[in-house]
Amino acid sequence: MNRRGLLLILSSPSGAGKSTLAKRLMAWDPTIRFSVSATTRPARPGEVEGQDYYFRSHDDFRALVEDGGMLEHAEVFGNYYGSPKAPVEQAMREGRDTLFDIDWQGGQQIRNSSLGRDVVSIFVLPPSIAELERRLRGRAQDSDEVIASRMEKSRDEISHWAEYDYVLVNEDIDIAEAELKVILSAERLRRDRQPALPDFVRGLNTEFETR
Amino acid sequence: MNRRGLLLILSSPSGAGKSTLAKRLMAWDPTIRFSVSATTRPARPGEVEGQDYYFRSHDDFRALVEDGGMLEHAEVFGNYYGSPKAPVEQAMREGRDTLFDIDWQGGQQIRNSSLGRDVVSIFVLPPSIAELERRLRGRAQDSDEVIASRMEKSRDEISHWAEYDYVLVNEDIDIAEAELKVILSAERLRRDRQPALPDFVRGLNTEFETR
Repeated sequence: MNRRGLLLILSSPSGAGKSTLAKRLMAWDPTIRFSVSATTRPARPGEVEGQDYYFRSHDDFRALVEDGGMLEHAEVFGNYYGSPKAPVEQAMREGRDTLFDIDWQGGQQIRNSSLGRDVVSIFVLPPSIAELERRLRGRAQDSDEVIASRMEKSRDEISHWAEYDYVLVNEDIDIAEAELKVILSAERLRRDRQPALPDFVRGLNTEFETR
Repeated sequence: MNRRGLLLILSSPSGAGKSTLAKRLMAWDPTIRFSVSATTRPARPGEVEGQDYYFRSHDDFRALVEDGGMLEHAEVFGNYYGSPKAPVEQAMREGRDTLFDIDWQGGQQIRNSSLGRDVVSIFVLPPSIAELERRLRGRAQDSDEVIASRMEKSRDEISHWAEYDYVLVNEDIDIAEAELKVILSAERLRRDRQPALPDFVRGLNTEFETR
């Protein structure tokens, strides 16, 4: 019997190193499935269906939401974005974990979804606001106004840190990576996620079976 | 500011390797404090106060229990045994974790105590009942009757596995040791146990402060 897969939610303000951490985690364990979002916005040149996004019409997207087929969704500038539930459930049955790179609003919706108890959520913080601003400035020649708006968005995201199970302060990316792996490894050892306990254990007290 | 120490409860049937695991964990991180039990039974030759046990009179023990000074206690063959609370609270304040080597009844009492939310509980299982019996027979020249009685006690202990946060199957002691370290490392990263988050984080949303 497979271990039941879990939902690993990674959130952070942009510039805190979340994408790098996600990539490193998936390189470490290729069985982890990355949750690809569905969206109603048109594909851009080079974007691949099912890899970058699932591209859907407004009607199809709305139908999926109404059927309970989205774990979370949101509207951004007139387009919808969301996390389809079916591929996550498929991965869970196969004993594979799904990684979500989403913001606090998406995380909150997934925690409140029918799969909420399978969620492990991690918030990645920069070591300081000054360092975050340095990183945001460092990677593009943007105007002060654009930077200020991104910083405002970051502060808003950071204000939700306390809703997460774990908090990582990404001062050194290698340490943060190690901590991320440690969290996932430990969560896989939780009683209700055990791959296959010896038969004599399950036989002993079926009244405690939770799944 | 120190990280708040946690209470690590290790339970298992005898013969599952719990004591070896406890020793290895404390060798790995000497800041971990082992919870020394208090008892009303007389000291045996060579036993050291505060190291093997805290030896107490019946009256002193009872007074401690009545004052809420015991995290858990039980009577065994007319003598009392228990885990004093004060040294645990002291360790917590110092940011040190306390390791408890106790049975399911003790574990249950501590989880229901005032320090319950600081508990991380791990149940260690043998790979099979046959292997457990082999280990119990292997280590002493005991009568079949004594072995049978120990096996009965072991089955009773195992029947409580589902009350624990984590379950380790000790098939290979080195793997079980690694898993134990992974669990403790991850639990230390939980949001509400974070050593000292950057000031800007705490400043942002004091309404989420849980402690």
